[in-house]
Amino acid sequence: MIVSLKSGADAANVLRELTGRGLWVSRVERSASGNAVHYVIAPHSQLADPEELARIDGVAEVTTPKPAHPLVSAQGPVVDVGGLKVGTDKPVFMCGPCSLESEAQVHETASVLSSLGVSFIRGGAFKPRTSPYAFQGHGDVALEWVRRAADAAGMRVVTEALGEGHVSAVAAYADLVQVGSRNMQNFSLLKAIGKTEKPVLLKRGMSATIEEWLLAGEYLLSHGSKGVIFCERGIRGFDDSTRNLLDIGAVALLRYVHRLPVVVDPSHGLGRRDLVAPLGRAALAAGAAGLMIETHPDPSTALSDGPQAVPLGELGSLLGRLVSAEEAR
Amino acid sequence: MIVSLKSGADAANVLRELTGRGLWVSRVERSASGNAVHYVIAPHSQLADPEELARIDGVAEVTTPKPAHPLVSAQGPVVDVGGLKVGTDKPVFMCGPCSLESEAQVHETASVLSSLGVSFIRGGAFKPRTSPYAFQGHGDVALEWVRRAADAAGMRVVTEALGEGHVSAVAAYADLVQVGSRNMQNFSLLKAIGKTEKPVLLKRGMSATIEEWLLAGEYLLSHGSKGVIFCERGIRGFDDSTRNLLDIGAVALLRYVHRLPVVVDPSHGLGRRDLVAPLGRAALAAGAAGLMIETHPDPSTALSDGPQAVPLGELGSLLGRLVSAEEAR
Amino acid sequence: MIVSLKSGADAANVLRELTGRGLWVSRVERSASGNAVHYVIAPHSQLADPEELARIDGVAEVTTPKPAHPLVSAQGPVVDVGGLKVGTDKPVFMCGPCSLESEAQVHETASVLSSLGVSFIRGGAFKPRTSPYAFQGHGDVALEWVRRAADAAGMRVVTEALGEGHVSAVAAYADLVQVGSRNMQNFSLLKAIGKTEKPVLLKRGMSATIEEWLLAGEYLLSHGSKGVIFCERGIRGFDDSTRNLLDIGAVALLRYVHRLPVVVDPSHGLGRRDLVAPLGRAALAAGAAGLMIETHPDPSTALSDGPQAVPLGELGSLLGRLVSAEEAR
Amino acid sequence: MIVSLKSGADAANVLRELTGRGLWVSRVERSASGNAVHYVIAPHSQLADPEELARIDGVAEVTTPKPAHPLVSAQGPVVDVGGLKVGTDKPVFMCGPCSLESEAQVHETASVLSSLGVSFIRGGAFKPRTSPYAFQGHGDVALEWVRRAADAAGMRVVTEALGEGHVSAVAAYADLVQVGSRNMQNFSLLKAIGKTEKPVLLKRGMSATIEEWLLAGEYLLSHGSKGVIFCERGIRGFDDSTRNLLDIGAVALLRYVHRLPVVVDPSHGLGRRDLVAPLGRAALAAGAAGLMIETHPDPSTALSDGPQAVPLGELGSLLGRLVSAEEAR
Repeated sequence: MIVSLKSGADAANVLRELTGRGLWVSRVERSASGNAVHYVIAPHSQLADPEELARIDGVAEVTTPKPAHPLVSAQGPVVDVGGLKVGTDKPVFMCGPCSLESEAQVHETASVLSSLGVSFIRGGAFKPRTSPYAFQGHGDVALEWVRRAADAAGMRVVTEALGEGHVSAVAAYADLVQVGSRNMQNFSLLKAIGKTEKPVLLKRGMSATIEEWLLAGEYLLSHGSKGVIFCERGIRGFDDSTRNLLDIGAVALLRYVHRLPVVVDPSHGLGRRDLVAPLGRAALAAGAAGLMIETHPDPSTALSDGPQAVPLGELGSLLGRLVSAEEAR
Repeated sequence: MIVSLKSGADAANVLRELTGRGLWVSRVERSASGNAVHYVIAPHSQLADPEELARIDGVAEVTTPKPAHPLVSAQGPVVDVGGLKVGTDKPVFMCGPCSLESEAQVHETASVLSSLGVSFIRGGAFKPRTSPYAFQGHGDVALEWVRRAADAAGMRVVTEALGEGHVSAVAAYADLVQVGSRNMQNFSLLKAIGKTEKPVLLKRGMSATIEEWLLAGEYLLSHGSKGVIFCERGIRGFDDSTRNLLDIGAVALLRYVHRLPVVVDPSHGLGRRDLVAPLGRAALAAGAAGLMIETHPDPSTALSDGPQAVPLGELGSLLGRLVSAEEAR
Repeated sequence: MIVSLKSGADAANVLRELTGRGLWVSRVERSASGNAVHYVIAPHSQLADPEELARIDGVAEVTTPKPAHPLVSAQGPVVDVGGLKVGTDKPVFMCGPCSLESEAQVHETASVLSSLGVSFIRGGAFKPRTSPYAFQGHGDVALEWVRRAADAAGMRVVTEALGEGHVSAVAAYADLVQVGSRNMQNFSLLKAIGKTEKPVLLKRGMSATIEEWLLAGEYLLSHGSKGVIFCERGIRGFDDSTRNLLDIGAVALLRYVHRLPVVVDPSHGLGRRDLVAPLGRAALAAGAAGLMIETHPDPSTALSDGPQAVPLGELGSLLGRLVSAEEAR
Repeated sequence: MIVSLKSGADAANVLRELTGRGLWVSRVERSASGNAVHYVIAPHSQLADPEELARIDGVAEVTTPKPAHPLVSAQGPVVDVGGLKVGTDKPVFMCGPCSLESEAQVHETASVLSSLGVSFIRGGAFKPRTSPYAFQGHGDVALEWVRRAADAAGMRVVTEALGEGHVSAVAAYADLVQVGSRNMQNFSLLKAIGKTEKPVLLKRGMSATIEEWLLAGEYLLSHGSKGVIFCERGIRGFDDSTRNLLDIGAVALLRYVHRLPVVVDPSHGLGRRDLVAPLGRAALAAGAAGLMIETHPDPSTALSDGPQAVPLGELGSLLGRLVSAEEAR
């Protein structure tokens, strides 16, 4: 929202009026012709009423620029996934192995997760691997495993569509279609997924700006997706003490400024199992709609990403620590 | 801690034994002569007993490399600042204006802060400003203002020593000497501050690695400082949606892996007043020992950093939201 | 290459011997059992003869780890594109508009480029755009335009395959298939392109490490590509003074350490037409095999990326300045 | 420079007029009241004449905003250091060891450098080291060594003032006072150095923006420095294949847009001796006024930064390769 001042207006007084309403004034610009222009971004839309602001003494006009991503701006913070609402006060958990490794593993996992109140089972049938020689996932058959296991346990399925050729199969088996970080700007894939009309979990690219992320969501919604849940999983940083850099500010920004649902993946975010609990708590405190947590019956034998997976037998204790006041010091 | 295997040992089994104890195995390296070498970093020292690990079948030896920062490694998570312990279960708040602007402002601020249970008043007498033409702080006289105001209100003082020439004055008036981000590797300043033997609040440099930050703390402790509290205030990112990038993973890493006290500055971290509450809550959830929050009686007239300061009259409500379950959605 | 020392060897003397041969000793590691291990990376393979190094006094063994990307490591610095060798002493230029806008535009451009000695005409039939509402390219028909124009002018065609569905058409019309930055880790696309057996121009991802880039090349070669030319076009930085951050060190590293051909795109690299000449000269000086330069008959009317395009009428002068000693000061 | 349009002007035509003059139009903004505002940044001041631009049809006014760093903007591309002009067509070389290790070493080095036509001997008497336990330099006595050696060889001295306490000694012995990367925003040090009125070599901070770097120069000039030479030495990146990320775009930007002298340090920039030649050539091609190159009589015994130093005996050959056409492929 842009608040333009009249010539000769008392700019400091207008600023006081705006900040006095709890509004965040991000930039003050002066046009070439000398009129001061204040840009205001409202943290909560109900706080900023353009008509009311226009009545402040010294204000010439209040305009609301058309957003670059109108469908994303209009979506709102709650997305319905097969009847389950993601983005309410009750956090949603999405757990499971990095890769779907066998039908037995998937059933065992689903059974434990269901008993812990986890809503979604996650796991990759197709895996994006940096090396062409690494394990690439079991493919279509793994989609059948996870669907059957989820149905038996009364859970929902979230899994990644890695390429355009997998979209229809993933859409047929999954409740929520995942777009991986490396594909956040694979526009052909976004269009193909949009056409399935399924809700989507959109992971942020390794060095994507917030605006690029929102525009990737706009690709999905403008091609048919019924809802987009954003997923922060850590961006590229300069320090290898942790695998990635979890951008907790982006979580708060999407939730409280853009009013969108964000799920956080603290497993990939740090790449360290021992910090999943404090970072998961931090994510929920910053406004996350839920958490995606890697778990594996036996991480030491995992075909991919073992070091960051939580042993399935310890997941219940972890979920408990996520909602407790804080880690024992 | 490094766990070296015997020739021919069952490496997968040793890994299972280690992860089964809750240990995080960060890297597996193979030496030139063919012996597998596992590096283990223990999340909590009590979990990793070298003698017990050495008894695992297949383990040849367990060695603990000498840390590059022995004094920092030995300090522990609690630092005493004039009788107040920072780093316990009770979070500590450090609040005040960016710059100390007048004696009246400082007294008014201290009086309000004290009534809200805030332990430290903060504020700069000397300000590091990107431009030589920006306001540089009121200097020595402001140190007297803040000391008198804090004494009257029963509070402690934290303020920055910007240059070597200010160290003795700051040490005389402050309870906790602050090192700013731009000076994290100003080694002459670190040595001078160390010699005063005061406890120090060490802000992280804009692009400092964790290891560089810890070594800056080692400079302080090895030259006499009685304790170092680390302060995460956001690092340089690639997206200007937020002023900086708050590294919440670094907070958890320092608290739970290195066992050190970390205070978080969500005001500088994002540069947005409207996100101070969710990010402050996230910081505490990730293990922060406390928060540093900029506040000003009237942010619209602040001499520096107004847009990110919380109005003094709203601080009580903000502190309440920090300890409540979560933001209203 | 790893040079391991005998117990009790004079490590400083071995180091002198290695550096005396012009070798770059990147890391010195000490194994858990106390034997020093030196890692050596040879700048030019002919300088480092494992058998000769093994005869240095104090050396126990010299091992050459299997590279993670064997086909990329074996490719070499020259790639043949339809009879034209890219990577020789003679730099290759790839010029043209961002988007292929009309048949007339393409023919006019090809005619001028050919007269200037430019080998490749570039231009997008399919454009990756951050917003779904931006111009997405003219599609298949533009491939026909550019092929006919190139054939008439005796040039080669390089153009991007944006999605899996475009691969066969692009492979049918182009001499060199381009993979864009956003698709560097679109592994489904890499596999599909590999199967066409065409040579590929692989742009580096916005925040891709060197190793990730080389492994993306390995995907292409292991699925059939007849050669991979790498293209540095600027990575994500923290300063918006320039659109991207041109990583000139990566160019030298790929050329002189990994011995691979690299083309540099100074138009995208900085996003500023006025710096194309000095950066193009710098790229060639650092070992680039050629340059990709955006040009347009009338940049002010370009459908995309106008601000960085060089007017077609000024290209001849620019190419002249690229090979002259240096910019007039 | 800001070009504002009249209401109803043909914006596309004005843009064509501007780009037709070789001007780079960086941004087009639309004010709240609907008038288009074009921002123009001129690559060379002689190209953009405000009065002439104001006569373009449709232009309402042309304004030149006051720069944030007026003294830096006015300095120009040549700085005089004791009679030697830095920034002319003839590149200047600054060579020497990382640390000044002994009087004999310094004299031997100066004698060789002088015979090779190198203008400045460099080397640290005070060393900024990440660890407090690393060698910190020989201090004041080393300043005497390097001064005597330079005088004997007819060279100039550039050396770093690490702390405020060293400024007067360094200013007494050096011709050019160096500010290190970690101190780029140590404003107390900048003020103290400014007061000595000596010319300064200002290294860029690890993650400093161009604007922050220029403003640090403004601190120096506004406090008395007789000239500032900027030094690009690599910024913090995300890939540890190279020690730092050499920002060649910043070199061109400072030289051709801001018209300032820039010296490049390819030794620190990459941390690899084997790439000093191609990167040095690239820096000169991008407009660098000179190069700073670490050299050591015997790098394997250097007290600091040995791996990146060029052996003194090979420096002549290296300097020859810097001015030759290009590296043998």
